[in-house]
Amino acid sequence: MGGVSTAERDRVPKQDRSRATRLRLLEAAVACLAEHGWAGSTVSVVAERAGVSRGAAQHHFPTREDLFTAAVEYVAERRSTALRDLFPDGPGDRKAVVTALVGLYTGPLFRAALQLWVAAANEEQLRGRVTELEARVGRESHRIAVELLGADESRPGVRESVQGLLDMARGLGLATLLTDDTARRERVVAQWAALLDEALDRGR
Amino acid sequence: MGGVSTAERDRVPKQDRSRATRLRLLEAAVACLAEHGWAGSTVSVVAERAGVSRGAAQHHFPTREDLFTAAVEYVAERRSTALRDLFPDGPGDRKAVVTALVGLYTGPLFRAALQLWVAAANEEQLRGRVTELEARVGRESHRIAVELLGADESRPGVRESVQGLLDMARGLGLATLLTDDTARRERVVAQWAALLDEALDRGR
Repeated sequence: MGGVSTAERDRVPKQDRSRATRLRLLEAAVACLAEHGWAGSTVSVVAERAGVSRGAAQHHFPTREDLFTAAVEYVAERRSTALRDLFPDGPGDRKAVVTALVGLYTGPLFRAALQLWVAAANEEQLRGRVTELEARVGRESHRIAVELLGADESRPGVRESVQGLLDMARGLGLATLLTDDTARRERVVAQWAALLDEALDRGR
Repeated sequence: MGGVSTAERDRVPKQDRSRATRLRLLEAAVACLAEHGWAGSTVSVVAERAGVSRGAAQHHFPTREDLFTAAVEYVAERRSTALRDLFPDGPGDRKAVVTALVGLYTGPLFRAALQLWVAAANEEQLRGRVTELEARVGRESHRIAVELLGADESRPGVRESVQGLLDMARGLGLATLLTDDTARRERVVAQWAALLDEALDRGR
């Protein structure tokens, strides 16, 4: 293919730098949402936190809505990948899987997503974007849950059992927003994991 | 007891008026929170909505935090009473009870409480008040759930099953914030009501 031109050599590091800037902005945006809520989360605040100029931030994300929905989606994807990596051999021990799924809803990502979600209830220009984002992230969480639990959704009640588990996980995430709810959560998870285990194996 | 003095006659209607003003403020505060979120909910906005002067509103509720935490608590109490009234003969049909409990988390009260809850995660002066309020409302919801489900918490797993149900109800409430989720919710509720029914009767 011949030698690499000077222009090409210059181009690649520039793309890398641009990508690194983008990632720094996404991570700063999620942290900012989780800590300060939607009202305290502007492009300027995030740019400063990421150590990036406001102009550069706007080059990557023209609007505030672009930045924060992209940020929540990016972190959600990274967490999904991390969750799959925890169980590389496919379906795992059900209690461990339920615990890991609930873990998706109790960290900074959920705090950030919750702030965006609740703000979208009152802001026209956010609602459509966030509704669509939540549907996409929700479908992906459901897919991972079915896969890691080894759930057969062709059997009656199995789909609804898995959905209810994810609803419970979301409710547990909300419960942990203001106080550390870990001890109670672990007992609830143990009990519901046992109920789910029976429901999934029924009639097998 | 003799005749009622003029002073007494005047005093009672005045108390009634004061009470009516207070209730109008509380109801306007909940509606305002549900529609506009914490950032859009000030004492002035609520006073105007309730048709009360700002001075009168501040006489009843000296601070913004006083007004909104009192509002969420008042509506939560009213909803608890309404829920108990639905099942005047004590424990009811479990699916009907689960449906009614989930209903606590899918109306305007939950929307309002959620706005307050999420705002409290980022606002020092709200956090303590809301944490304490949520604990109180949460204990009361748990008490009603145990009572109406006829759950015997001395049996292993029963307490955690009921708690998980309320966590699921909260998660279902969150899912319905941006889109009408009724059809999916009904299927999840039917399935988990059946699982809960078995869990509560186990070993009886």
